[in-house]
Amino acid sequence: MNVPKYADIIEAAERIKRYVKKTPVLTCTTINNMVNAELFFKCENFQKVGAFKFRGATNAVLFLSDKEAARGVATHSSGNHAAALALAARNRGIRAYVVMPENSPWVKKEAVAGYGAEIIYCKPTLEARETTLEKVIEKTGATFIHPYNNFNVIVGQGTAALELLKEIEKLDIILTPVGGGGLLSGTSLTVKGFSPKTKVIGCEPEAADDAYRSLKEGRIVPSINPQTVADGLRTSLSDITFAIISQNVEQIVTVGENKIIEAMRLVWERMKVVIEPSAAVPMAVVLNSKLNIENKRIGIIVSGGNVDLDSLPWLK
Amino acid sequence: MNVPKYADIIEAAERIKRYVKKTPVLTCTTINNMVNAELFFKCENFQKVGAFKFRGATNAVLFLSDKEAARGVATHSSGNHAAALALAARNRGIRAYVVMPENSPWVKKEAVAGYGAEIIYCKPTLEARETTLEKVIEKTGATFIHPYNNFNVIVGQGTAALELLKEIEKLDIILTPVGGGGLLSGTSLTVKGFSPKTKVIGCEPEAADDAYRSLKEGRIVPSINPQTVADGLRTSLSDITFAIISQNVEQIVTVGENKIIEAMRLVWERMKVVIEPSAAVPMAVVLNSKLNIENKRIGIIVSGGNVDLDSLPWLK
Repeated sequence: MNVPKYADIIEAAERIKRYVKKTPVLTCTTINNMVNAELFFKCENFQKVGAFKFRGATNAVLFLSDKEAARGVATHSSGNHAAALALAARNRGIRAYVVMPENSPWVKKEAVAGYGAEIIYCKPTLEARETTLEKVIEKTGATFIHPYNNFNVIVGQGTAALELLKEIEKLDIILTPVGGGGLLSGTSLTVKGFSPKTKVIGCEPEAADDAYRSLKEGRIVPSINPQTVADGLRTSLSDITFAIISQNVEQIVTVGENKIIEAMRLVWERMKVVIEPSAAVPMAVVLNSKLNIENKRIGIIVSGGNVDLDSLPWLK
Repeated sequence: MNVPKYADIIEAAERIKRYVKKTPVLTCTTINNMVNAELFFKCENFQKVGAFKFRGATNAVLFLSDKEAARGVATHSSGNHAAALALAARNRGIRAYVVMPENSPWVKKEAVAGYGAEIIYCKPTLEARETTLEKVIEKTGATFIHPYNNFNVIVGQGTAALELLKEIEKLDIILTPVGGGGLLSGTSLTVKGFSPKTKVIGCEPEAADDAYRSLKEGRIVPSINPQTVADGLRTSLSDITFAIISQNVEQIVTVGENKIIEAMRLVWERMKVVIEPSAAVPMAVVLNSKLNIENKRIGIIVSGGNVDLDSLPWLK
């Protein structure tokens, strides 16, 4: 297996810098006082398409040769990766094909179509997704860009932590959410190369705790149809992300659904920042004393801010 | 009348810099493309207490002599100014007395009490507010800090525009909301001193258009009990703010209620930033072609982000 290294992240940062936003790092005195630690929020919810996913997708698209690029890129995802890939492809002037379940929410279709991707609908099963994707690739010759089990995607995701570490010195811990593990993997590679004393910890919903269980058992133990408000974290680790995380990540900490919603609301209320439920998981871990963080300096990668404003979890 | 000058703003910026946040300036490509202009959002919703009001309150509190300060400060307000004054007083280690109508929403009481102010309740009439405040001042010797008809408050509010102009060059226009006129006055003084070619324009709800009418008639024409979702803008100009605005502000533009709510939602959705209805008024002006802004560089002072998350205007 071809596993990325820190040097790949440095190259990716250079490759994508014309396209991605250098997102701000925010702090909040009130929350610091609540948890008795110093928190630094790397706001990837302000990234283009509203999520860190744009980094990985851009890196993967720019890495293609001209010949490959001419045939386009494809993926199956209805989430932030699909929108990110659509915009990354448009920026390079190539086609993006996105396979989506026909019952996807309207807002998600809109987002992907709005960035100029071609949507191919399929039945809402994993099998239908995969066979439809295969057909698309066969027909078009497009390159499949997996949302996280992809060398260049992982490497791209690691550039957020690189910006954070360059801006904020001496972090004791960096927290990220973990779903498929792309962000956590990339972050851990960056930290190992740039700031090896900093600990990297993955934060996961209890209701979708495959990374926690996989690390414990030393093999990939996927979550089967997990139900969590953190819709970006329902996916399970893949072979590349499992390999990286097993080697570089200190620990996975899990937290319950209500705590995630409370943490999300607290960030909106106190920091005036719109974060999606998945992005609130590290904050929920910090607020609920799941870690010894007293007087520590903690970086949090705020993964995204794509939320349906007509349907907020605390109003249900 | 003692009207402030640009030099006073420079002094205030120095005086308050230990206490206020230098808030970030955000941009959004999607919104720029929608309006065909370059917008720069000075995010005072990320300021302490969630609003620019902390600048003016801090400046007014720090300006007091030790003898005055020892007797505390007082105000009648149930909004952002009250919370701002409470925190500014706490930072100096002095007392703050806040006169509030007994029917004020719980969240507002909480905010003010949370910063350690003493709340004195009164009947919900203007007369009761004023007589109660007089009594408090008589009894305690506290200094009254008016939310906007106050030299040092106005000067403090002008420091937000100073930071914006130092960071972003060559702005053609700066927009602020206008309620009592403190922010607009302070901003206009800063612009006159630092960047005299930049136009300053006030943005006001149609339903509370006293500044628009006052400038047109050349005298203060208050709004009587205005009903607008922009709860921070229900107040009317005062003698100091009217004098400054008449002299320095290009124009006042008004916009309707639904447009304000749409603009607020757009900023949440696209920029991932929580702004309060009052802060959305300049954005509503820009979105609805109320100004010729094509290809211009426009600064917007995002005034605040204090919103009841249980009661969002687009969900009513």
